[in-house]
Formats: sequence, C-alpha cells, structure tokens
Amino acid sequence: MPVNLTAPVAAQLLPVAGVLLGVAEANIKRPNRKDLLVMQLCDGARVAGVFTKNRFCAAPVIVAREHLAQVMGSDGIRALLVNTGNANAGTGEQGMQDARTTCAALAGLLGCKASQILPFSTGVIMEPLPVARIAAGLPGAVANMRADNWYDAAHAIMTTDIVAKAISKQVMVDGVQVTITGIAKGSGMIHPNMATMLGYIATDAAIAQQQLQSIVSEAANRSFNCITVDGDTSTNDALMLIATGKAAMPEVKAAGSSAYNTLLDAVSEVAIWLAQAIVRDGEGATKFIAVRVEGGRDEEECKQIGYAIARSPLVKTAFFASDPNLGRILAAIGYAGVADLDVAALRLYLDDVLVAENGGRAASYREEDGQRIMQQSDITIRVVLSRGAANATLWTCDFSYDYVKINASYRS
Amino acid sequence: MPVNLTAPVAAQLLPVAGVLLGVAEANIKRPNRKDLLVMQLCDGARVAGVFTKNRFCAAPVIVAREHLAQVMGSDGIRALLVNTGNANAGTGEQGMQDARTTCAALAGLLGCKASQILPFSTGVIMEPLPVARIAAGLPGAVANMRADNWYDAAHAIMTTDIVAKAISKQVMVDGVQVTITGIAKGSGMIHPNMATMLGYIATDAAIAQQQLQSIVSEAANRSFNCITVDGDTSTNDALMLIATGKAAMPEVKAAGSSAYNTLLDAVSEVAIWLAQAIVRDGEGATKFIAVRVEGGRDEEECKQIGYAIARSPLVKTAFFASDPNLGRILAAIGYAGVADLDVAALRLYLDDVLVAENGGRAASYREEDGQRIMQQSDITIRVVLSRGAANATLWTCDFSYDYVKINASYRS
Repeated sequence: MPVNLTAPVAAQLLPVAGVLLGVAEANIKRPNRKDLLVMQLCDGARVAGVFTKNRFCAAPVIVAREHLAQVMGSDGIRALLVNTGNANAGTGEQGMQDARTTCAALAGLLGCKASQILPFSTGVIMEPLPVARIAAGLPGAVANMRADNWYDAAHAIMTTDIVAKAISKQVMVDGVQVTITGIAKGSGMIHPNMATMLGYIATDAAIAQQQLQSIVSEAANRSFNCITVDGDTSTNDALMLIATGKAAMPEVKAAGSSAYNTLLDAVSEVAIWLAQAIVRDGEGATKFIAVRVEGGRDEEECKQIGYAIARSPLVKTAFFASDPNLGRILAAIGYAGVADLDVAALRLYLDDVLVAENGGRAASYREEDGQRIMQQSDITIRVVLSRGAANATLWTCDFSYDYVKINASYRS
Repeated sequence: MPVNLTAPVAAQLLPVAGVLLGVAEANIKRPNRKDLLVMQLCDGARVAGVFTKNRFCAAPVIVAREHLAQVMGSDGIRALLVNTGNANAGTGEQGMQDARTTCAALAGLLGCKASQILPFSTGVIMEPLPVARIAAGLPGAVANMRADNWYDAAHAIMTTDIVAKAISKQVMVDGVQVTITGIAKGSGMIHPNMATMLGYIATDAAIAQQQLQSIVSEAANRSFNCITVDGDTSTNDALMLIATGKAAMPEVKAAGSSAYNTLLDAVSEVAIWLAQAIVRDGEGATKFIAVRVEGGRDEEECKQIGYAIARSPLVKTAFFASDPNLGRILAAIGYAGVADLDVAALRLYLDDVLVAENGGRAASYREEDGQRIMQQSDITIRVVLSRGAANATLWTCDFSYDYVKINASYRS
C-alpha cells in the first residue's frame, strides 16, 4: 500500500475554466479499464512543458515537441491525448506514424488540425501502438468531456499506480482568485528527468508563453527532478502546464513579477505534492524517505550525494527492513564521487537523531534511537557536510520484495 | 544457488612456494565459523594492491595502504591478516587503533614489525572491531599455517557468499613453470572499484615492485572493475597480488617484456575468473549476464552505456522474470548520458538474436527467440553502437526476491 497517500476525493478537485476532460475504455492493453484521456482546451489556452531527456525518447514525445514548437497565434494547442497500456516507444518509423494518426483522428473529431493535438503514451515499450483501438475509443472520450472530470482523468492515466494522484489549489493573484488542478501518474522507473511520469497541471491564470515555459521548467526542477524510485528514467515522461487565461487577471508577462512568483510557487506546490505522491506510491514502497544534504559547496554536489544515497539498493533494502544499518548510508556518501570530501567533517542524522560524526558512530548514538526512527513510515536522512552553504532535498522510497515482484511480472 | 559456479576442489588448488595460510574460528560475529585468515609470506616476497576508491574507506584500508607505502628492503610485508564478520569501517579513531592493535598482535606471534602486516576486514560496518576476540584467535590461525591450505582460506574469508571462490593456474615464463593461486570473496555491494570484495592472488614468480603494481592495477581493470551486482561500492575492498620470487626465474623488471605480458595475462585470467565467480554468486542471482558494448567512440562511453544497462533495476528484474522486455534495455541505453547518441543507428542483440535496430524492434525478431535466450542462465546483451572502434564488456547478474531478502536481513 502507498505510504501515507490517500486517494483523491472527486468533490475536492476543482474544475479549471477552459479545460474539459473525457475518458474512455479503449481496450489498449486489457478490457474494462479506462485507458484513454482527452483534455480539450479553450481557444487561446497556452501549453508549455518539459520532456524526458532520455535519448531513446518515444514517438509521442517527438511529435508533442514538434507540435508545441509550431504553436502560433490562433493555431494553438487545442487538446491533449493520453493513452495508457502502450508507450509507443522503441517502435521506429511506424511509431511516429502511429502517433500522428491518433492526433489526426482526434483532430477530426474536434475540428482542428492534427498539429494542435499533443499525444502522450505510457505503458509497455517496443510494442506497436494499437492505433485502431485508440481511434475507436476516441468518440466515447469526446462524448464524455466535462469540466468536473479530473477525478476520472487521474484514474485513466494510471499504470502500476495503486492510488490516483490529483490535487487542487487556489491562490489570489493581484486580487483575483485563480485555480490550479493537477494530476499525475507514475510509480516505477522514477528518477530525475522524470521517468515514466506523466503530469498535467492546468490553471485558469493568464500567462504569456515564455513565462509559462519558465514556470513549468522551474516547477519541474523543484519537484519531479528531485525524486527517484529506482534510478531508471523513461522514454515517455512529460510534465505539461496549461494556462487557459479564463481568470479575470492581466496576463503575466514578466518573470520575477509578484504575480509570476505567486503562480510559480503555487504551481510548484502542486508539482511537489504530485511528485511526492508518486514516490509514496513507488512500486512496492513501504517507507517515504526524504534525503536532505546541507552545507555543500554547491547544489550540484548536494544532489550528487543525495542521489548516491537515494539510489543505493543496499540503503533502500535496509530501510525496508527497518534496520538502522547506517554504514550503508556512509558508504554511499563515500562513493558519490565528491573527490575531496572530508568524511570526518560530516554529520549524519536520522530525523533528529545524530548517528555519525568524526568518521564514525556518534558517541551519543544509541541503536534503540535509530530503531525507533526506522519504524516510522516517513523518515528524513540528513547529511550535514559542513563545507559550504548549499542544500538539496530529494525524495525516495525503500526497496521491497514487492518492487521485484511488480517489475518481474509487469508484462504478464 | 550461484549461477554455474561450482565449489573449489581442495586438491586442485596449488600451493605457492613462499606462502603459508592458517585459519581459525575467532567468534567475531558468531561462533563455529572460520572467520580469521593469516597468510604468512617468505622473506623477500613482494606485495602490491589496489584498494577501494570510496571516500569513506575503512580503517584497515588506511593502515594497509600506510604499511605498503613503508615497504623497504628487508622490512617487506611478512603477513596478511583477514577477518570477516566486522568491517572496522565508519569506526573513527578507535577503528584505526584497533586495526593497528591486530597488526601488532600478529607481529608479536610472527616476530616481525606491526608495519609488516597488512590488515583486511569485511562484514558489518560501523560496529567496533572485537579486537580481543581476534587477538585470541590468532595463535590458532598461526598454528594452523600450511602451504596447502588455500581451500580453507577461501572459506574463511566468505561473508554472504554461498560458494567459496578459488582457482589455480600454471604458466611457463621463459621456460620456467610458475604457479598462480587466487581466492576472493564478495557477493553484494559489487561495483567497479571493487565493492565489499577481497581478492588475494599469489604467485611464485619473481617480479619487481613497480611491475607487480602495474600488473595488479591492470588485472583489476580487466576484471574486478568490470563487474556490478547492485552498483554499491564498499568501504573495504582490496585486491592484493603477492610475488614470492621462489620460482627459478630472473626477476621481471620491464613492463612490456614477454615475461611481463605472460604474467599479466595469467594473473588477469585468474582475476577475471574470480570476478565472474563473484557475480555468479551475486546475492540472489539466478542469471549471469555479460553486457558487451561495441563500436563506441571510446572505451569510456562503452562502459557508460554498459553500466546503465547493468545497474538498471528494471532490466535486472526483467531478466529475473525471463521476460524479454527489451524496451527496458533501450531505455537504459537512452539515459546512459551519451549526449549525441543516435539511437536509430544502434543494434541490440540477445546472444545471437537481433532484437532491435532502426530505433525499434527488428523486423526479423520473434518473441519466442527472445524468450528462448531468456531461459538460459548465461546470457550476453550485445549493443553495437556503430560509431567507432572501441569496446567494453561488463558482467552482472539479475535482481531477485532473494536479493532483497538477503540485504533486508543481513544484520539479523
């Protein structure tokens, strides 16, 4: 079961003016499962996003990037199309054609150009996309479109997720209330640069294209790029930010303005909640672990050490066992690749318990204190490097029997 | 059970003139277990080695490096002392004292200086070394010393190993037969730069100090630095090469000479066998996987891609499940960090079966062919990059329930 993550409540998910959502069962991988989502956007809505950095990126990622790059004036993006059950990745030239075909099919139904549709796929890779089944499912998704359909949308994009991930937030921007609602999916192959992770955040705020792009990039840096489940990054990840401009506010045109900062923080908050929800629902996770590295020379070395800890299978299995085997954390710090690190100068804490200093176990440390922290389902590993003022916080989960089970049987 | 790895046969392990080995039960972690090894070297024997690059290296590593650096003439290394059950790592200043104390205790028994002893420890980290128990066990180990004791020695250094690792080889060097015998331990926390891995190789060849060091460094690059079980590197690893000079041959003084090359290849062969044995005995391993990356611009990028594959928990769990989920391999290649990689130009093989080309599944590929290869216990993943002439081969194993089980319960 996910770690301290409760399922969304439909009534708490707020519609975003200018966005309609429709879902359908298209039998993409198996029957009786909502596996198709269409998000239709009002005229004038803007979309910006960040995509996987994997060199082996999937066909829909290439097509979505192309379509976003072509956006001009009234030819803006009119819909997002998401399917689960098949990632359309590692499918070569046929995969590109298939992604374009699904865009054209939806464009035909919505009366727009294929280039105004952004396609997204997630699921098994290297298998041909069942284009005919998707096309056959689209009319049902379009017929299902409603503004208050975020709850079903969050469910339609799930793959190995146990719990749907969705949240809404409202903030005042220059005296006007704006709404932000986000959904995400993902529970394995999670690593920065956003492995098998799809996230869609929409707001009715009015934001110029360039500022929208900088908000989504920075929000991703603060959230999805700070999580790891297993260190694998995927071929298909994307985080998209939609601004419909339906709120009665002047368009945000300057980065750094008060309205910009308010929206950046609010979008980041939604993105962080979604990113942490993905870790809490990490495949087989039984513990949520924050890794905070303080006092580094720069953020880069803090993240380097944080990821060495957060990715270590030995650290993660020890947390699964609730075993305060702290030496494994020290060993991971040691091999993180910070060449001139003075290990005698650093301090290691589990929550508020000092466990190591001076190159070894802290004199004050008692195994029962470590044991007590290890029983918790939310734990913070804190490393104080004492060599600078930079910090970084990452989020990960433990490594359990069920991780192996889920990933050994995913295709069957 | 280990993958195609059979236990050593005592009669096939050849004594190396000038080396005596003694083992004892010192009750370091638990009773009734051989956990102490003393290797006594003849006067004039030389020792060279490579150690972990982990910044958090253990006290015995620091002391062994110190003692090796002090070697001068008749004050050469006279013995190696290995204990299991406790790694004496993350133990601060006390750990340094403890490592020196055990050296002094053995030196007293052998009639040499403490600086002529090299200490090695492996086991749980961050717990105080039980010095008194080790000292009490040493007389028994010294009394047990014999030239034909390699079989017991290989067993005395085991921790989570299921099968002892030992091999002998003889080669002719300039018309003289020389013997090489090696033992190793390790089965988890295995990654290049030699995680929780101890290896001891001895030969009766006569090799000058500088050439001995270059042979052990190069042999480590060809063997222990090409394996990974879980990507973790340890605080204690060491590979030591002993040359007693008892064979009736002129001392090897020139790197690149025919005698040097013969010995380098023979020592490498022993080291590769031991390194592969460690992977075959990888914690919970059910498959031995060679990852060969060909046609890269340089060895560095070949290794980078190879390690991305070999470390991926998703790839490793798919192999455990005998599932030809080849997309996971392609995804790992994609995130390996080779920025300008053209994924459409590469080909991917499972043994001799072409599975992917042109950015997707090969037209000739049939799932049943992939399935057939996946049933094997020894599998080669071959990636042909088609962008240069460099190659690299790494060895790893799959990721099973038992990996999690072993590492979640190691201390209990």
